[in-house]
Amino acid sequence: MRHFNDLAECSSEQIESLLKLAARLDMHPEPKALDGKVLALLFLNPSLRTLASFQAAMIRLGGGAFVISPDMSIHGLETRAGIVMDGQAAEHIKEAVPVIASYGDALGIRAFAPRRSLDEDIADKQYHELAALAGGPVINMESAINHPCQSLADWKTLDDLGVPRNGGKFVLTWAYHPKALPLAVPAATLHMAAMRGMNVVVNRPAGFELPPAIMAKARAAAEKSGGNVTETSDAREATEGAHIIYAKSWSSTRYYGDGPGDLKLREPLLSWCVAESWFDNARRDARFMHCLPVRRGVVVQDHVLDGPRSVVIQEARNRMVVQMAVLHQMLSGKRQ
Amino acid sequence: MRHFNDLAECSSEQIESLLKLAARLDMHPEPKALDGKVLALLFLNPSLRTLASFQAAMIRLGGGAFVISPDMSIHGLETRAGIVMDGQAAEHIKEAVPVIASYGDALGIRAFAPRRSLDEDIADKQYHELAALAGGPVINMESAINHPCQSLADWKTLDDLGVPRNGGKFVLTWAYHPKALPLAVPAATLHMAAMRGMNVVVNRPAGFELPPAIMAKARAAAEKSGGNVTETSDAREATEGAHIIYAKSWSSTRYYGDGPGDLKLREPLLSWCVAESWFDNARRDARFMHCLPVRRGVVVQDHVLDGPRSVVIQEARNRMVVQMAVLHQMLSGKRQ
Amino acid sequence: MRHFNDLAECSSEQIESLLKLAARLDMHPEPKALDGKVLALLFLNPSLRTLASFQAAMIRLGGGAFVISPDMSIHGLETRAGIVMDGQAAEHIKEAVPVIASYGDALGIRAFAPRRSLDEDIADKQYHELAALAGGPVINMESAINHPCQSLADWKTLDDLGVPRNGGKFVLTWAYHPKALPLAVPAATLHMAAMRGMNVVVNRPAGFELPPAIMAKARAAAEKSGGNVTETSDAREATEGAHIIYAKSWSSTRYYGDGPGDLKLREPLLSWCVAESWFDNARRDARFMHCLPVRRGVVVQDHVLDGPRSVVIQEARNRMVVQMAVLHQMLSGKRQ
Repeated sequence: MRHFNDLAECSSEQIESLLKLAARLDMHPEPKALDGKVLALLFLNPSLRTLASFQAAMIRLGGGAFVISPDMSIHGLETRAGIVMDGQAAEHIKEAVPVIASYGDALGIRAFAPRRSLDEDIADKQYHELAALAGGPVINMESAINHPCQSLADWKTLDDLGVPRNGGKFVLTWAYHPKALPLAVPAATLHMAAMRGMNVVVNRPAGFELPPAIMAKARAAAEKSGGNVTETSDAREATEGAHIIYAKSWSSTRYYGDGPGDLKLREPLLSWCVAESWFDNARRDARFMHCLPVRRGVVVQDHVLDGPRSVVIQEARNRMVVQMAVLHQMLSGKRQ
Repeated sequence: MRHFNDLAECSSEQIESLLKLAARLDMHPEPKALDGKVLALLFLNPSLRTLASFQAAMIRLGGGAFVISPDMSIHGLETRAGIVMDGQAAEHIKEAVPVIASYGDALGIRAFAPRRSLDEDIADKQYHELAALAGGPVINMESAINHPCQSLADWKTLDDLGVPRNGGKFVLTWAYHPKALPLAVPAATLHMAAMRGMNVVVNRPAGFELPPAIMAKARAAAEKSGGNVTETSDAREATEGAHIIYAKSWSSTRYYGDGPGDLKLREPLLSWCVAESWFDNARRDARFMHCLPVRRGVVVQDHVLDGPRSVVIQEARNRMVVQMAVLHQMLSGKRQ
Repeated sequence: MRHFNDLAECSSEQIESLLKLAARLDMHPEPKALDGKVLALLFLNPSLRTLASFQAAMIRLGGGAFVISPDMSIHGLETRAGIVMDGQAAEHIKEAVPVIASYGDALGIRAFAPRRSLDEDIADKQYHELAALAGGPVINMESAINHPCQSLADWKTLDDLGVPRNGGKFVLTWAYHPKALPLAVPAATLHMAAMRGMNVVVNRPAGFELPPAIMAKARAAAEKSGGNVTETSDAREATEGAHIIYAKSWSSTRYYGDGPGDLKLREPLLSWCVAESWFDNARRDARFMHCLPVRRGVVVQDHVLDGPRSVVIQEARNRMVVQMAVLHQMLSGKRQ
């Protein structure tokens, strides 16, 4: 594996192989596998799980990581092409990215959606531009429209829980949040569950439909895997017989990049906060998933998070475990 | 050793064993002892020595550490229970702590006193809540009322200097500082010296008495070790025949959490700045100790810090050395 | 090698040996060479390449690094001697530097010019004071007047490109920049090229002459190596037959430390932006060098940076490669 941009670029055999390797590395550590290997981590946006789990994964395999983020003691980074840099920024990504990449055996990149254009964000334009500058192996640590490390961790969590692939019911539900959040996790999660062969329902209010291109990509994956993908705005219908309720807030797609429009649309939707009652129609052993960070009492009620349905900590720990597998496949036995 | 919360939880045999291990690791490095082991470091408050010395300790033992602090590029952390998170903070410690802990083989926690209630701070309520969330081994990197790593380093420094246990005289003196500082170091230092069997005098102005519970805990330790604990406000009497003058500023306990009250009480106390004259009554070879950081010309005069009595740099270096021992005992040969 | 303060302190045999070791470590990694060794990194000023490349270099050799910078969660650092610390800063460099150094097997220091006195900055007064506090091996990560890691990387880059030592023509040219930048890189670069035996031309506008002491040091190095050093303000003459155009902006020496004076002098110099036309008189295969970060469209035009003449990314990567050699020579086989 040279790059890890998108789970959709992996065959199901590759995913199986990554999941097996992840489980093996978790049971039988290999603290010399990546001796002397370096992971460069470039964060253009904040992080907690990703920041910590990638560093931990590299240490567990005998290598190490360094972190560059714009709020560290570095010169501001300019991203616009062809600009005369007579303002604040003292360095351009055209230099910063290849330089940082040149110190690592692989480069992790986090870059949230610029939100200037929904089409560009769906095409993951910025991420692909940054990745192209790296000149070497890259890992997507959450881009405008993707978060393959989260999706692989979620897949492993579903396997760990024994949730069936074909026949398992996976509800991805929008939830209230005071801010307009990225589409990366919902888009990646939807595709992951579809690719896993599950019966996937997207439950979201009007104006928050996932973009047609994202739905189509998931439907194509479902077709191949024997799963299916539907949409609704009726939580009761959506959760009928569900194995999993996966909550996530995201921005309005009707008012994408339009703050006031989005806010007006979401204001009346405070009731989209997952509570135990949301599980009334689900399987008795249904679980609650969320990628974190999560706002308690806003996205989900405390009693769900603190109760036996929640597997959010396991999901988060699996980030480290699957990333060990990705790094091992990408870097072991290879020279820079 | 599963946790390192408080030196008082260690038997004197355990402390002997840690100090021997520390000396051995300092003389004979074991750069493979913690291969692939990860220390998670969570700083809710600033740090220099702790930040650096724990990272260095892990590297020297072949493992590594990652650091999470609120001023890094993370979402703000909410600490209040049962709150509806519709404000600034995007993540609750109920998720953040177990997640961060799940990436490490142990979790170091720094959390200064909230100063809402002296009783809660003396009970180290916040630290115990955070530690309970970790679900695995934890290390106290300074809490509301404790700093066991500093105390173990100070114990080693006293041993290195040949200061006698029974019969050694240890003066813990309050010193002026423009701000109301935590009780953690004075409380931990007092207990350490008492547990070491020394004759301990606490020298402090009226209104800055250490809380009765802290004094009682130290007296109980002294009883067991053959030491004793007294109090005074007379520096001349306190320092008579002293082996050690250990300076530290702390907040008024009479006006605990009351900024203006504390300030008014400390304002006239500028003369509580340790100078060479403070050693007039002490042993000729008496030493000056301080945990650092220290304000020159405020807590202690330059001529003391720059003179032969000061052992503050050795104390600080011993932080790394004893922490290697703690980490080695906690993590070597064990699986997460 | 105990310290790495200044390339001028190395014999040409030592430099040859470092460059050979660098090339070897790049081809044949030694991921156990510095097992358990720690590099302490103290940044009093911002950094990207240095921050990343030193961490990467230590990991590649099996050790590790920790980073302390004033914008991290540490107490402010006081640098003035004899001051009563009743203000903001809670710690003095007299404690911070030896403590940080005591946790590492070597200490890297970055400290830009205070710009209070040109003579003090030329003498590298602050760096030498900080280095003296360390008490152990130190590495100059850019001081008021020097940047030996950059110079060694540039020397290697010139070797990699096959640029001849004696007879190679090296043009160090001033370039426009909205801010008054340090003299460290131009001074170090000039000396490096002279020490390498090249024909060096410094091209700079009136008022931006490098200080006589810096020119004299370079001339002495050139005398020894068979090179020579000249100055001009005529870019056309300077670049005649050049192998290398090395661009760098620096502050006015006529108005050193005088912001408005410097600004007035540089305002009309916007045309000092390297473009392809600057290579009209140079060798057909002439290369463009810069230490980065570089302002596009200000210091150099995009078409040069994006074209085949630019070797700025190789230069930056060589930072890591030569630093591995410096660290290996300094730390391998040695105990703290």
